[in-house]
Amino acid sequence: MVVVMSPEATDEDIARVVERVESVGGEAFVSKGVVRTIIGLVGDIESFHHLNLRTLRGVADVHRISDPYKLVSRQHHPDRSTVWVGRPGQQVPIGPDTVTFIAGPCAVESAQQTLEAAQMARSAGATILRGGAYKPRTSPYAFQGLGVAGLEILADVREATGLPVVTEVVDVRDVAVVAEYADMLQIGTRNAANFGLLQAVGEAGKPVLLKRGMTATIEEWLMAAEYIAQRGNLDVVLCERGIRTFEPATRNTLDISAVPVVQAASHLPVIVDPSHAAGRKDLVVPLSRAAIAVGADGVIVDVHPKPEVALCDGPQALEGAELRELAQAMRRFPELVGRQPARAPEPVV
Amino acid sequence: MVVVMSPEATDEDIARVVERVESVGGEAFVSKGVVRTIIGLVGDIESFHHLNLRTLRGVADVHRISDPYKLVSRQHHPDRSTVWVGRPGQQVPIGPDTVTFIAGPCAVESAQQTLEAAQMARSAGATILRGGAYKPRTSPYAFQGLGVAGLEILADVREATGLPVVTEVVDVRDVAVVAEYADMLQIGTRNAANFGLLQAVGEAGKPVLLKRGMTATIEEWLMAAEYIAQRGNLDVVLCERGIRTFEPATRNTLDISAVPVVQAASHLPVIVDPSHAAGRKDLVVPLSRAAIAVGADGVIVDVHPKPEVALCDGPQALEGAELRELAQAMRRFPELVGRQPARAPEPVV
Amino acid sequence: MVVVMSPEATDEDIARVVERVESVGGEAFVSKGVVRTIIGLVGDIESFHHLNLRTLRGVADVHRISDPYKLVSRQHHPDRSTVWVGRPGQQVPIGPDTVTFIAGPCAVESAQQTLEAAQMARSAGATILRGGAYKPRTSPYAFQGLGVAGLEILADVREATGLPVVTEVVDVRDVAVVAEYADMLQIGTRNAANFGLLQAVGEAGKPVLLKRGMTATIEEWLMAAEYIAQRGNLDVVLCERGIRTFEPATRNTLDISAVPVVQAASHLPVIVDPSHAAGRKDLVVPLSRAAIAVGADGVIVDVHPKPEVALCDGPQALEGAELRELAQAMRRFPELVGRQPARAPEPVV
Amino acid sequence: MVVVMSPEATDEDIARVVERVESVGGEAFVSKGVVRTIIGLVGDIESFHHLNLRTLRGVADVHRISDPYKLVSRQHHPDRSTVWVGRPGQQVPIGPDTVTFIAGPCAVESAQQTLEAAQMARSAGATILRGGAYKPRTSPYAFQGLGVAGLEILADVREATGLPVVTEVVDVRDVAVVAEYADMLQIGTRNAANFGLLQAVGEAGKPVLLKRGMTATIEEWLMAAEYIAQRGNLDVVLCERGIRTFEPATRNTLDISAVPVVQAASHLPVIVDPSHAAGRKDLVVPLSRAAIAVGADGVIVDVHPKPEVALCDGPQALEGAELRELAQAMRRFPELVGRQPARAPEPVV
Repeated sequence: MVVVMSPEATDEDIARVVERVESVGGEAFVSKGVVRTIIGLVGDIESFHHLNLRTLRGVADVHRISDPYKLVSRQHHPDRSTVWVGRPGQQVPIGPDTVTFIAGPCAVESAQQTLEAAQMARSAGATILRGGAYKPRTSPYAFQGLGVAGLEILADVREATGLPVVTEVVDVRDVAVVAEYADMLQIGTRNAANFGLLQAVGEAGKPVLLKRGMTATIEEWLMAAEYIAQRGNLDVVLCERGIRTFEPATRNTLDISAVPVVQAASHLPVIVDPSHAAGRKDLVVPLSRAAIAVGADGVIVDVHPKPEVALCDGPQALEGAELRELAQAMRRFPELVGRQPARAPEPVV
Repeated sequence: MVVVMSPEATDEDIARVVERVESVGGEAFVSKGVVRTIIGLVGDIESFHHLNLRTLRGVADVHRISDPYKLVSRQHHPDRSTVWVGRPGQQVPIGPDTVTFIAGPCAVESAQQTLEAAQMARSAGATILRGGAYKPRTSPYAFQGLGVAGLEILADVREATGLPVVTEVVDVRDVAVVAEYADMLQIGTRNAANFGLLQAVGEAGKPVLLKRGMTATIEEWLMAAEYIAQRGNLDVVLCERGIRTFEPATRNTLDISAVPVVQAASHLPVIVDPSHAAGRKDLVVPLSRAAIAVGADGVIVDVHPKPEVALCDGPQALEGAELRELAQAMRRFPELVGRQPARAPEPVV
Repeated sequence: MVVVMSPEATDEDIARVVERVESVGGEAFVSKGVVRTIIGLVGDIESFHHLNLRTLRGVADVHRISDPYKLVSRQHHPDRSTVWVGRPGQQVPIGPDTVTFIAGPCAVESAQQTLEAAQMARSAGATILRGGAYKPRTSPYAFQGLGVAGLEILADVREATGLPVVTEVVDVRDVAVVAEYADMLQIGTRNAANFGLLQAVGEAGKPVLLKRGMTATIEEWLMAAEYIAQRGNLDVVLCERGIRTFEPATRNTLDISAVPVVQAASHLPVIVDPSHAAGRKDLVVPLSRAAIAVGADGVIVDVHPKPEVALCDGPQALEGAELRELAQAMRRFPELVGRQPARAPEPVV
Repeated sequence: MVVVMSPEATDEDIARVVERVESVGGEAFVSKGVVRTIIGLVGDIESFHHLNLRTLRGVADVHRISDPYKLVSRQHHPDRSTVWVGRPGQQVPIGPDTVTFIAGPCAVESAQQTLEAAQMARSAGATILRGGAYKPRTSPYAFQGLGVAGLEILADVREATGLPVVTEVVDVRDVAVVAEYADMLQIGTRNAANFGLLQAVGEAGKPVLLKRGMTATIEEWLMAAEYIAQRGNLDVVLCERGIRTFEPATRNTLDISAVPVVQAASHLPVIVDPSHAAGRKDLVVPLSRAAIAVGADGVIVDVHPKPEVALCDGPQALEGAELRELAQAMRRFPELVGRQPARAPEPVV
């Protein structure tokens, strides 16, 4: 930590900062410049937070130097992690050696629609099925999902197709039931700072897919992962899905740079959701290609057998020719970045 | 609703849109231009949403024309509302005739600190006490609030000072206990899209202070209020507290224009939180003055008897000279905009 | 300046930083922490910039501590400045003791329209006339202004009304002619980083009204003022006019906090343009009130005798009842913040 | 164009809109809904702009339907364009069949440094040399470029290496001299709304590289290109270089989606500048790969023989291993998206 004193700060002001730092066992290194004095703090950073140095007379600014996250940081865990999704013997990896393809409908609407979407996904090469039983919607008048009935459909479709299932949990009271049915719990962009929910999925015993808050900095996103990790769950996969900017041509702006930035800062895997970022299906294929090329550990997209009757986000769901084009990219691009498409191991016979 | 066809759309494409609109009982008015055709939709807008018109061939864009919120809209409720906070006989209004001053510590840390802060607030003219027993924090390692013990302190301080209490609820499981102790439930900026929590406070029987999500558009903010209203609770006060922008000089950018924009669109009262918007105490007095001048129905600020030992947001808490300056502004400015400072009615003897 | 070393930095890496700093006559104070080392730099900051410390091995980050602006900084010029606009004997002040009201049409369209707008402005209490002869437009097909003919109209209207004139210059080749006619040169939001133009108005011998770039940080805005000041012209008035954010309800988001932030950092006057920030005339009166209350040194607004035939920004121009309401605010609010409405001194007879 | 009437609009208000539209030869189609009436406008859109419909009583909103750009639009020019850079017989294409690699130093500092950088660029596969002789800098105290001496160095290095040269012009007064020396004129991000400069390069007879304003919407960016095109120059290459957002981890946020969005809307080529977007050299290789994968027509990067002594943007310049890695990506990735690396044709002997 570095404390910057204002030009008017007196020697007494400086002494008070030093005294406070030393009162919690820290060391303070004073550098007096012509205009300003800066004080470098050495010691246990957590203890410094409670000193409220910014409120002391003569203090102009306090710069934090160290990362605020620990468990998810790459600093003490240099090797990048792989998270395994699915039942023993049928697990799919998400990590640095593979590119994992996750696909499925935005919302579970019926058994038939979900099964058809899962078959489309599997045919295109996806090895994990996505699908929402609980839908967070901006309008209270919009379709809110089938709830437990939707979870049951997902479980049935998993039986039929062999694909592990990732599905969103939006309410802390639903964590137990969702964890019972799903192979991976998704935290959506609107719940990226719902700390109680983050803690609950940290204790639920299943891997977590943590979407970036549409307005979260990368540091805040990693702190959300830290909330989960702090409860004992390090099986967290991060998902970049676009941030809110002034540009109206896309629903959000896919922050593709976030992938290598996160990979440098954290050992957790990071995947990309081009469907929700763009909100336009014509951008899904080029953005998926870009995601693989930039080094993402996976891609998650919306598919739907009949986008024109979808109850949620139909305009971004792939089908037909575009899905075939995506399938081809998912097969051909990983090799260029030294990876393999992630496959489910054959079931043990 | 207006459907804009792409220049390549065929007559058949246009006919299909018309047909779908008519299939749910709507009317479609076709305007053929030289380059493009536009189709105006008349009828029940909710039924149009499920048509997924944007996914049809030849459709370039769909513009929504009507506001998506209803209960909180000023359209069918032209008079602006007043929300009353506190126990019968001691209620404080927040509405169009008054400017309500709410103050207190960011976090409840101890009985003594809370009582002192409440006395500071009351001396400065505040008529509602704010204070957090549950604190949503970006870091899992930061002080998370005293919980129920904090609620009990707040209730005691209310007895001692006569000030009704507003306090934040961050978890749907805590709504009942918070509603038992508090006079008004606060939904914080990070929970502005926590729809389950919004619905729960909509059923809790207490007025709600709904902070704007730091990344929410005004329309999304009003939709969050609609979630509460839809559960039967129209006693919602909106609170502008800054939005996230590229400007680093302030923690967030106070969107002062949001006050008259909201007042034109909704009948709900709207107040301003300059402390959390700016994150710097030197800006709290000028921004509070601006809030009253722009027509806000109230102001909510952080005060603390000893900001340098505060466990939360010390750098923005007022005390001493700055608090006296704010108190003066709260007395003198309302008259200029044709309002009175809100006072609690004398207790019934 | 503070150099933060990465956790992997070696003693040799640290020594190299120290050596480079000392090579230009600076001093380097090393603070070794458990995880990281930080190095405080003392000496001539300009010489440090050329060291490219960020490119050295082991350097994680470099924090600048001092403000990059000098001439416009309040640090060595603690008293806030007053800028005088107009011919000797008829000058209008913009500064800390007054609130200056500037009004006029967005664009000069004709002699009659400009005269009528000026009379409206003067009747409402304005003491400086605004009006554009050169209009920067997003579309090459939109009205681009009357050019020199517009400048002549402005000069005539100044004769007729006694109001000094501020008008925009958009091209470095026009600076001389605009400076010949106008009393104050305006740099618009789109030219806030047009450094050649900034330097040219710095040498033109007339006061400058410098609008904030719609995407400029406050620091970048002050650096733009520094460009003007560095050419010898300290008669610069800053104008906050809204920044670009994600909120679509207003054309831009008026950053009202920028007023006190700038006043703490710089001695230059700062005014507010609510018309261009909001783009909606119903917001101009409340935002003007807020501007005075927050402590702005003036307000600049669009007025037009017939907004419905304006060639530019008609939807935001005031007239009639709204202009009278604004006039009243401009008379009554300054006193509350300890100021007077700025008046032109009576002409010397 | 669609005019949305407010719910309170009267029949008379509607009639007035219709009348005004018809007064300029347009047709107005009225769709009366239960709550609101909408009016579709058909005819010459330019004539509608001058009607100021938004200022008429009863008008709530006016939606533009057509794109405001014409010459750069893909609507009447469905085939994507190729721009050729360099002298006859040695021209390098930028267009839909190739991926063009442009590299060089941020600033021309000396003959030796520029020559070495050009040789690095050529060895890595670049076929166009970039380098700035005029540098727009946020601080008036920073290195502003060598000016004409820099242009001469660039011309010499072109002779020595055979690489055509693209260099920035920042002042309208320099357009002629820059056009004399350079093969392609660059408009930088800060001049994206400097309309006089855009018009001047539109008349300068050389291809233009138009960087996106760091705060420009895609529509505004295309309108800037329209300014150039309207002066007769359709040899415009667009360059995405990051937009300003709230995320501090990168200097700007590379809007990778802008590439396919622009390609759908305009026939002009579009390339990507990962160096200036990220401001960090460790991101340049992954972002360059992403750019090719998303379908960009080229990539432009900073290289420098000695980044640690660079006078401008050293921290983002590539050299050594990273440049070799980029060179490999530039050779291997284009094929995957059905393209060839752009090569200069052999000189005519």
